[in-house]
Amino acid sequence: MALLGNIPVVPTPFLNGKIDQESIVRLIERTAPHLDGYVVCGSTGEAPALTTSERKDVIRAFAKESPKQLELVIGLGHTSLEDAIELGLDAAEAGIKSALVPSPYYFPNSLDMVIDYVGKLAEATGLDIVFYDNPVTTKTTFTADSLIRLSEAVSSIKAVKMTDHAFGKIRELKARTKLSVFGGDDIICFRAFEAGVDGNMIIAPIIFPEAFRECWNHYVNGDRERSFDIYSRTLLPFISMFGPGDEIPTTKALFKHLGLFSSAETRTPLLASDAQRTREVLLGYQQGLQKQQLK
Amino acid sequence: MALLGNIPVVPTPFLNGKIDQESIVRLIERTAPHLDGYVVCGSTGEAPALTTSERKDVIRAFAKESPKQLELVIGLGHTSLEDAIELGLDAAEAGIKSALVPSPYYFPNSLDMVIDYVGKLAEATGLDIVFYDNPVTTKTTFTADSLIRLSEAVSSIKAVKMTDHAFGKIRELKARTKLSVFGGDDIICFRAFEAGVDGNMIIAPIIFPEAFRECWNHYVNGDRERSFDIYSRTLLPFISMFGPGDEIPTTKALFKHLGLFSSAETRTPLLASDAQRTREVLLGYQQGLQKQQLK
Amino acid sequence: MALLGNIPVVPTPFLNGKIDQESIVRLIERTAPHLDGYVVCGSTGEAPALTTSERKDVIRAFAKESPKQLELVIGLGHTSLEDAIELGLDAAEAGIKSALVPSPYYFPNSLDMVIDYVGKLAEATGLDIVFYDNPVTTKTTFTADSLIRLSEAVSSIKAVKMTDHAFGKIRELKARTKLSVFGGDDIICFRAFEAGVDGNMIIAPIIFPEAFRECWNHYVNGDRERSFDIYSRTLLPFISMFGPGDEIPTTKALFKHLGLFSSAETRTPLLASDAQRTREVLLGYQQGLQKQQLK
Amino acid sequence: MALLGNIPVVPTPFLNGKIDQESIVRLIERTAPHLDGYVVCGSTGEAPALTTSERKDVIRAFAKESPKQLELVIGLGHTSLEDAIELGLDAAEAGIKSALVPSPYYFPNSLDMVIDYVGKLAEATGLDIVFYDNPVTTKTTFTADSLIRLSEAVSSIKAVKMTDHAFGKIRELKARTKLSVFGGDDIICFRAFEAGVDGNMIIAPIIFPEAFRECWNHYVNGDRERSFDIYSRTLLPFISMFGPGDEIPTTKALFKHLGLFSSAETRTPLLASDAQRTREVLLGYQQGLQKQQLK
Repeated sequence: MALLGNIPVVPTPFLNGKIDQESIVRLIERTAPHLDGYVVCGSTGEAPALTTSERKDVIRAFAKESPKQLELVIGLGHTSLEDAIELGLDAAEAGIKSALVPSPYYFPNSLDMVIDYVGKLAEATGLDIVFYDNPVTTKTTFTADSLIRLSEAVSSIKAVKMTDHAFGKIRELKARTKLSVFGGDDIICFRAFEAGVDGNMIIAPIIFPEAFRECWNHYVNGDRERSFDIYSRTLLPFISMFGPGDEIPTTKALFKHLGLFSSAETRTPLLASDAQRTREVLLGYQQGLQKQQLK
Repeated sequence: MALLGNIPVVPTPFLNGKIDQESIVRLIERTAPHLDGYVVCGSTGEAPALTTSERKDVIRAFAKESPKQLELVIGLGHTSLEDAIELGLDAAEAGIKSALVPSPYYFPNSLDMVIDYVGKLAEATGLDIVFYDNPVTTKTTFTADSLIRLSEAVSSIKAVKMTDHAFGKIRELKARTKLSVFGGDDIICFRAFEAGVDGNMIIAPIIFPEAFRECWNHYVNGDRERSFDIYSRTLLPFISMFGPGDEIPTTKALFKHLGLFSSAETRTPLLASDAQRTREVLLGYQQGLQKQQLK
Repeated sequence: MALLGNIPVVPTPFLNGKIDQESIVRLIERTAPHLDGYVVCGSTGEAPALTTSERKDVIRAFAKESPKQLELVIGLGHTSLEDAIELGLDAAEAGIKSALVPSPYYFPNSLDMVIDYVGKLAEATGLDIVFYDNPVTTKTTFTADSLIRLSEAVSSIKAVKMTDHAFGKIRELKARTKLSVFGGDDIICFRAFEAGVDGNMIIAPIIFPEAFRECWNHYVNGDRERSFDIYSRTLLPFISMFGPGDEIPTTKALFKHLGLFSSAETRTPLLASDAQRTREVLLGYQQGLQKQQLK
Repeated sequence: MALLGNIPVVPTPFLNGKIDQESIVRLIERTAPHLDGYVVCGSTGEAPALTTSERKDVIRAFAKESPKQLELVIGLGHTSLEDAIELGLDAAEAGIKSALVPSPYYFPNSLDMVIDYVGKLAEATGLDIVFYDNPVTTKTTFTADSLIRLSEAVSSIKAVKMTDHAFGKIRELKARTKLSVFGGDDIICFRAFEAGVDGNMIIAPIIFPEAFRECWNHYVNGDRERSFDIYSRTLLPFISMFGPGDEIPTTKALFKHLGLFSSAETRTPLLASDAQRTREVLLGYQQGLQKQQLK
């Protein structure tokens, strides 16, 4: 089955410094009916700040609690191949089929380095790979050409998630390959629709699950104006205020406010949202909510 | 008089490769009643792609056509001090009091280099300086500390325009100095309001002049919710679609569509908005317009 | 005891994918008599590509095999505080007193984020901290001011290792603080001497241990010309050819050639030196060796 | 005639803020017999800080004073196409055939933008183009693929000067195209030889003209060891000390010391070499000189 649709990246809830399983359950209950899947333990899940054991716990929790028809994509971002393989094998054992894999993010990468690393990870785990093209966190830049070379060298790569703003890359990948392409940045998500993405791996669909699904479905069905109406009415006010840069703490602050998460804790080095930021985010959220209801 | 309020950056209209004075007149007629001034020949005005003589023509046109109560801030971005001084003296002769000055943008800069360059420019022209902190185009990064050192070393610096997303810098400058601070990036402009800016040097106020003024006035008068209502209803749909990265060509495409500019031409290296991008921008604009009227 | 002198960063030898203890022993035997210590499991040690268990093995090996009068500085670069603490406590138990700690390297950092992360790591481990200012691998830039704020906030920071080329920062730190400062980039190491460093955490001292010691001692004793004579005669030919960017694979290729390491293996994502690069590095090494002997 | 060999980039001498023609004459007299040409008004010539009129003066001076058998390559780096064309036409009138052209350096560039800009400049001036791939000053990164696309789109591009350290690009360009490739960074120039460059557009050949020529000739004639002997003996001590980052001020300080230039003045924003830097550079120069004579 091809990966398609709204597969949001989810934050990892903490309580007193520990993974908070109950909040995971609440989040799934609230959002799953309107989604096509989850990306678990990605950047938004603060995976680099978790231990291997914690990452397994989060993945297992989602594997257990998510409805079976939803896709789970497990974030395998790492700098140690051996640890990434251990995580991938554990996820595979739990029934997960796909992994989101960025370039390793410590040493400056050449294309050959990324091919070597991702190829070995794919081979050892047997997972389908969504390659995560994230120049900001990985300091590694891809052109359409280099993404195509990578996906030809590593045949397990079935999809690409893009966070940069080079919409031309999305168009080239769709024209020249069979790769699925996912938008990866909330702030430009409608422009990603316009560029032809197959789905979205962003945060907005767990903030406004029904509205995001409706927005996406209208777009896919050719009703671009109604789609943009929902986008600009409900989603944009929030999206414009919850970043850029601190989307994780602010989303957690909102989820705490809504009672979905038991706390707004982040894991160092991320700092929790302060009162001012929380106030800004709530303004955006409430405005989106109001405008949605006034429809 | 302190620089304050909505002093948008304006694109330079071209017609068949030449400066288009008539479009300048139309733009001023349409927007001036709702503004506090204009930034002329900044980045948005494509100043680096103009000749010295063209830059003078644009400045003179604004000096002649703008209502006298409006502030004119002249962009003096350059890599050649002598050329920048020539432009500044010409502007001063035309009655202009303030200049927007970024770091010189070819060689990697140290703070001392910027102090030397900006100091000499200020002294030779006698203009008040709005220092333009633009890390993307100048490859030069400032902390609050280094901005303060710069403004202490160059006493003509009266204000700072910031395009980066380090809102903490705005707060520090306001707390520790008497500098005016202007928001410089449309996409985050409401968060700049929240951080305490004294005004806005962005594009949005010439797209929706009345709405932007109303939005800003509500904010300044303490009615944050009404301000955000206008922002998210009218301004955001457009702002979310006209960038990031190609705000100049898309703004020109809109102005051509609206009959304000006689053409959507840009000057190389900027490429004109293509049909797809124009279609995206018009969607954003029309949505903003509709939601404004439904108020 | 203050950290001082030549405390090189050492590559981690592998054999068939495993840590190669015997090569560690050979490296120590060959180099220890001429050194003040070792930095173990830093960038050069490919620490981000090792598992926690492997990192402990390497540290324990050095703790066991190094002469007691040498300082061991353990690299704690990580993105997960909990893992870093585990490593630090294990090192402390093995008698190690100092850790080299860079900014966490996945999410973009603010100064407050680095203070939070490094402060917690220092407190939990009780180790003295050498803060590693490495903009390339951590995407985090420090001015002298921000390094001073960091060291004031985290009193366990006793030293700074600098890899960037901002020699003015070295001078400011020496003038304004009691921090030790270590040069961190081979290619500019003599200029780091000139800027006043207290020692060197680079690779060259394990390539030419006697020559580097002699070079440093002459400099410290005020004989700059003799120091530079040794530097340019013996060290520079190698340094100019073993980088920039692939110093780790090329050093390993040299050590394999010299019989110090049993293999030139690297850990993915680093790729081993190819024949051409090895040939270049050997040219540099042999030239340095010859010119040393002709002295 | 193909561009080949040692065509150094030359600093522009100033005296009391004006172009110093006499120093240009002295520089040519001293160095021309050992060179294949000059790059005039490039980065090293501080061209971005000169007025159009000054750039013409420098070009005319070299056109007048250089021996006719030497190639002159005129730097046309600019952000204004019209100004660049004016300079290029003036150079063509003075008999110059080739221009060194970087990406325009203010706005972030796409490949299409660079093709548009450079193509128009080539067409309007009729000059052969050496494309200058300089990521640091232009914020624009090229892969081998994108350089090839550019050179296919702009057929006047006959050569590429590279300043980055991606030696694989040099090899790919030589294997896949007929372009000449020039090394562009002193510090890695021997590694550029090894990667197969056709020549060098760097500073070293005007510092040690005879030694550099001898070094290059040995390399081209297959005597790599003798070439590297000269390189490491004579050139490296200087090269290791005159940068990185402030090669222009330090070269001028050396030329002043040697009596070649009447002053060590730079043009703002570059700051002149201070006493400490001059002392460092002279140490490197004198060491290189001594080791050359002891040969």
